[in-house]
Amino acid sequence: MLSVNERKSLIETALGHQPLDLLLRGVRLVNVYTGRIEPASLGIKLGRIVSLDAEGLPAEQVFDAGGRYALPGFIDTHVHIDSTLLTPEGLAELIVPHGTTAMLADPMESANVAGLAGLQALLVSADRLPYHLWIEVSSRVPTAPGLETTGGEIGLEEVRQILTWENCVSLGELDPSKVLGLRDEYLAKVVASHAMGKIANGHAAGLQGRELTAYACGGLSDDHECVDDQEAFARLRLGMPVLVREGSTERNLEPILNGVLSEGFDTRHLMFCTDDKHPDDIVREGHIDYMVNRAIALGIPPIQAVQMATLNAAIHFRLDQEIGSLGIGRWADVILSDRLEQIVPSHVFFKGRLAAKDGQLIEAVPPGRYPDWFARTVQVTRGKQAADFALPASGAHASGPVAAGPVARVRVIELYPDQIINRPGQALLRVVDGNVVSDPAQDVLKLGVVERYGKNGNIVITFVHGFGLKRGALASSVAHDHHNIIVAGVDEADMAACVRAIETMQGGLALAAGGEVIGQLPLPLGGLMSAAPASEVIEDLQRLNGAARELGCVLPAPFMTISFISLPTVPELGLTDMGLVDVRRHVLISPFLE
Amino acid sequence: MLSVNERKSLIETALGHQPLDLLLRGVRLVNVYTGRIEPASLGIKLGRIVSLDAEGLPAEQVFDAGGRYALPGFIDTHVHIDSTLLTPEGLAELIVPHGTTAMLADPMESANVAGLAGLQALLVSADRLPYHLWIEVSSRVPTAPGLETTGGEIGLEEVRQILTWENCVSLGELDPSKVLGLRDEYLAKVVASHAMGKIANGHAAGLQGRELTAYACGGLSDDHECVDDQEAFARLRLGMPVLVREGSTERNLEPILNGVLSEGFDTRHLMFCTDDKHPDDIVREGHIDYMVNRAIALGIPPIQAVQMATLNAAIHFRLDQEIGSLGIGRWADVILSDRLEQIVPSHVFFKGRLAAKDGQLIEAVPPGRYPDWFARTVQVTRGKQAADFALPASGAHASGPVAAGPVARVRVIELYPDQIINRPGQALLRVVDGNVVSDPAQDVLKLGVVERYGKNGNIVITFVHGFGLKRGALASSVAHDHHNIIVAGVDEADMAACVRAIETMQGGLALAAGGEVIGQLPLPLGGLMSAAPASEVIEDLQRLNGAARELGCVLPAPFMTISFISLPTVPELGLTDMGLVDVRRHVLISPFLE
Repeated sequence: MLSVNERKSLIETALGHQPLDLLLRGVRLVNVYTGRIEPASLGIKLGRIVSLDAEGLPAEQVFDAGGRYALPGFIDTHVHIDSTLLTPEGLAELIVPHGTTAMLADPMESANVAGLAGLQALLVSADRLPYHLWIEVSSRVPTAPGLETTGGEIGLEEVRQILTWENCVSLGELDPSKVLGLRDEYLAKVVASHAMGKIANGHAAGLQGRELTAYACGGLSDDHECVDDQEAFARLRLGMPVLVREGSTERNLEPILNGVLSEGFDTRHLMFCTDDKHPDDIVREGHIDYMVNRAIALGIPPIQAVQMATLNAAIHFRLDQEIGSLGIGRWADVILSDRLEQIVPSHVFFKGRLAAKDGQLIEAVPPGRYPDWFARTVQVTRGKQAADFALPASGAHASGPVAAGPVARVRVIELYPDQIINRPGQALLRVVDGNVVSDPAQDVLKLGVVERYGKNGNIVITFVHGFGLKRGALASSVAHDHHNIIVAGVDEADMAACVRAIETMQGGLALAAGGEVIGQLPLPLGGLMSAAPASEVIEDLQRLNGAARELGCVLPAPFMTISFISLPTVPELGLTDMGLVDVRRHVLISPFLE
Repeated sequence: MLSVNERKSLIETALGHQPLDLLLRGVRLVNVYTGRIEPASLGIKLGRIVSLDAEGLPAEQVFDAGGRYALPGFIDTHVHIDSTLLTPEGLAELIVPHGTTAMLADPMESANVAGLAGLQALLVSADRLPYHLWIEVSSRVPTAPGLETTGGEIGLEEVRQILTWENCVSLGELDPSKVLGLRDEYLAKVVASHAMGKIANGHAAGLQGRELTAYACGGLSDDHECVDDQEAFARLRLGMPVLVREGSTERNLEPILNGVLSEGFDTRHLMFCTDDKHPDDIVREGHIDYMVNRAIALGIPPIQAVQMATLNAAIHFRLDQEIGSLGIGRWADVILSDRLEQIVPSHVFFKGRLAAKDGQLIEAVPPGRYPDWFARTVQVTRGKQAADFALPASGAHASGPVAAGPVARVRVIELYPDQIINRPGQALLRVVDGNVVSDPAQDVLKLGVVERYGKNGNIVITFVHGFGLKRGALASSVAHDHHNIIVAGVDEADMAACVRAIETMQGGLALAAGGEVIGQLPLPLGGLMSAAPASEVIEDLQRLNGAARELGCVLPAPFMTISFISLPTVPELGLTDMGLVDVRRHVLISPFLE
C-alpha cells in the first residue's frame, strides 16, 4: 500500500515535475477496464503506473515495446505454493516468464508443519520475489483435529492475527463439513475475515441443492472445486464467483468454459487458479498463460480471457487498487506479447522492472533468508529400525483357507492411478514370526506413517495396493496435510532406511532397496521444499521416479501419489500417525478385518 | 455483518431444519450475477436470502409474488443526505417506495455543523430506517480551512476513527486542489482509508489530461462529476469507475449513456448516484428507479441497467456480500415489478420485510432519537439588529459620475438561474448616511453571512444580483458548506428580522418584509433538517417560494440558490463569515472596487 510520500511522488511524476523511472513506449494496451485495445505509452514510477500517455514526460529510462500488446500480469487465485517441492524463490523461474506476477497462496503445508511461525518463515523473503505473494490464511490446520499429529496449529486467534497482515487477502478454503456441521471455531474464522473487510474462500467440492445453498449461508464467497459448467452455474446464480481450476490432475477449464460459451454466459465472475500444479507440468504447459490461451482457443474473446486472468480476480479479492489492470496507481506488472490470440510473453515486467524475457528470468532470485529452525523440523523417535514396522498378527483374526502357515485378513488402500481418491480393499497376508508381512506378488505393500515432530513417536501400519513395487521402499515427508513421514515398502529394513535418510536430510523423498538408500531428494525447508533451482529439483525427481520404476513401481509419479494417501479428508481411506481413517465416517478403524 | 450464531441460523434454515421467516414465492428473479431471468422462490431468514429454491422449505409466512420480476434493492452511491431539508427518516417515505434501499451518504453538512459528534447525531437512529445508510466519511470539513468558520472539523484523527465504524464504506469525495496541491493531511486520509480496506471517492470535476492522471495517482477510486461520455471514458480507461449522476441540477445520465451505447462500451464499471436531488424532484420523477428507467429507455438492456443500480455499485464499494444482488447471504432487499422494461416497484422489501407497496411506505418510520443538543446549534451574537448590516462606505473609493449624492463601486455576485456557479460583476450603489445600500431597481441586494456557532460573531456584507427581490429579505441556515446564516435583502431591518427568526427556530429558512417575518420553515436539526414529514416540508417550502415571488423574486427556488452562494469552492465568488472569497485564487477580497 502506498504511503503519503509515495503518493506525492506519483502525483508529481504524472504532472511532469519528477522524471519517470521508466517510459514504456509503443504498446497496444489491453485495457481491461474498457475492454478496448488502445495505443499507449506507459509511464512508471516507484513500480506503479502513473500515465497511459507518458510520451513527452521526462524519463530516466525508455523501453520501446515496438507495438507489442501490453497486458496486466496474471493472477493465480488459489495455489498451495508450498506443495510444489520448490521454495517461492524456486518457483519464480517457472511462473514469472509465463506472465504470472501474483500468487494468492494458501500455504497450508508450512502451517501444518509449524503453525503461524511456519507461515512467517515461508514468507520471510517474500518482498524480494519477482512476483506478488499474497496469503489466503489456512482455515483448517490441522485438517482433521484429533485424527492426526501436526507440527503446528492455526486456531481462531492465529487466524485473527494473520488476517491483520497486509499480505493476507482472505480466509483460505474451508471445507463443507466444518460449515454444514455448524462448527463454531470455523464459522468464527469466516466472521473474523469479514470483519477485516476480507473474503472467505470456499471449497464446495461436489455440493449441490440445499447443501450448496447452506454452505453459501456460511459466508463462503467462491468455489474452486467446480468440475463442469453445471456446477459452475449452480454457484454463480447464488452469487458465488468461480475460480476455474487447471492443475496437474484437476482439469476443469474446458468443461466449464465450453458451457459458458454454449450458454452465452457472462465471464465477469470467473477467474483462474491452479490449486496444485507440479513444476514439471508448468515447464511443459505453462501456468496461467496456458489457461488464457486454452480459453481463447475454445472461443472466449481474448480480452475476456485476459480479464479472467487479471481484473476479475483482483476485484474479487479486493486487490483492484494494486493489481489486475494497468490502471493508474496500480503495480506496473506488464506482460508484452506479439500476439493477442495466442499470448506468449516476450517480456514480463514486475513492479516496473524487466523480470523475464523470452521465457527466462532476467536475473536469479536471491535465496530466501529462511530461519535456521525452518530447515530443522524433522525429529523422529520411532521408525528408524526395521522392527518398528512389524505389525503383530496378535489381535488379528486369521481367516480364509490356511495355506502355508498363519495368515491375516487386512484392509488395503487401493489406489487409482493419477487420482488422489482411493477405495477400500482387502487381502490375506502371511504372518511370519507373528508379524504380518507385505506381499509383492499381490502388490500389497506395507504402508506406515511415522510421527516426525518429536511429539509422541506415533507409528501406524497398514497396507496399500497399486504401487507395484517388487522390492525396496519409498518414503516422503510431504504427506498431506499433516506432513509426517509416510513410507511404503516390501521390506521393513528398507522402510526404516528411508526414514533414517529423511531424518538425516531433515525432510525429503527417499528410495531404498537391499537395506540401503538408492536415491533421495532433500526437502529441508519445513521438510517440504528444496532451495535448489527448479530445474535441478525436477531432474532429481525424475531420476528418483526412474529408480522407483526399476524396483517395479508402475505409477508415473509415485512420490506424488504417496503424499496424498495420508490425507484424512479424501475418500475413502487415509493413514495418519494416529491410525487408519475412515474418511466418510471420520473415525479410526483397525487395519485388520474379521 | 453476520455473527456466528446468525450464520448458524441461516445454514440450518437453508437445510430445512429451521423455518424460513418468509417464503417469497413465484418470482421471476433478475439474477445480476448470471445476467439471466429465472423462476425462483426466495427463502428469507433474519432478513437475509437463504434460498433461491425455497419451495418446500418450512416457512412462518408466505408471500405470493404472482410471477412479478424480483430485483435487488437500488443503491444511491453518492448523496448528501443532510442537504435535503429532511431527516433520514423523512427521506424514507420518498425513496423507499421507489426501490432505493441503500444510501451511501457523505453527510458533509452535519459534519460542518458539529464534526464527528454531528455525524453520530445524524446516524443515531440509522438502524431503525427502512433502508441502509452507509457513510462516505467527509474528507474536507471545513471545505476551505482559514476562509470560513464552521461548527466542527473532521481532521485526520476523526477520519481514522470514523473509518473504523462498520457503517463507513469509504473516504468521501476529495477535491482536486487538495490532491494536486500535495496536501499531506488529505493524502493521509486517503491512505488511512486504503489501510482499512476501504476506497476513497473522487471528485474530479472538469479534470483532464495530466491533471486527471495525477489526481488518480492520489489514490482516488472513482468520479461522480463526469458531465459527458468523453469525461466518463477518460476516467474509465485509467481504471476509475464512474458514478453516473442525475440530481436536481446536475443531469449527466443521458450524455454519458448515449456515448456508452454508441461506442458499445461495457457498463460493468458504471453505477448511479443523485448527489443532490431535492425532495420535490424525487416526488415528481422518482429516485434511482428514474435513472434505471431512463437508461432502459435510452437503449441499455434492462438487466445491465439493473446491474448499474445494484451489483456494480456493491462491488465497487466492497459491499457485495451485503447488498447489490439477491445472492445467498445478502440482505433480502427486494423490489417487485410487473414489468422489466419500465420498472415500477409494486412492492419493496427491506431486510425481508414489506416496507413499501404501490408507492407508499407500509408503516411510518419511527422518529429519530436525535440528541437534544443537535436541535440547539444556532448561537448568534451579531446580525440581529439592522445596524449590523450597515456597510460603511469609508475605505470605499467612490467613483463614476456622481448623480444624486455619494456612491460606491462594489463587487456583485451575479447568479446564473438554476446553477450553483456565479460570475463577478459590479455596481454603483448609493451611500446613505455613510452606509452603502441595496438597489432593487438594479436588482442588487445586500448579501450577508452571519456566523452562527457562537464562536466569533463574524458578519460580512457584500452584494448579489439575480434574486429580483423588490423588498424584504430572505435567509437560510443551510449555507454550503459552513452553514452559517446567509441572508439577502433590500432592507437591513428585514435581514435582521430573518436572522432573529432563524435563531428562534434554531435553524431554518425565513422570509421578512416590512420589518416582520412573513414566512418561515424551521430546520432545527443541526440547523439543516426538519423532522416533519416530507410532504409537509415540501409544501412549506413551496409556500415560502410563493411568498418570495410576491416580494418580486424571479428565481424558482431562491432558498436553494442562496444556500450555494456561500460556497467558497465553486467559482467565481463565495461569501463566508470571513469575507468575500475569490474561489480560483483562494483568497479574500474587498467588497469594494477602486
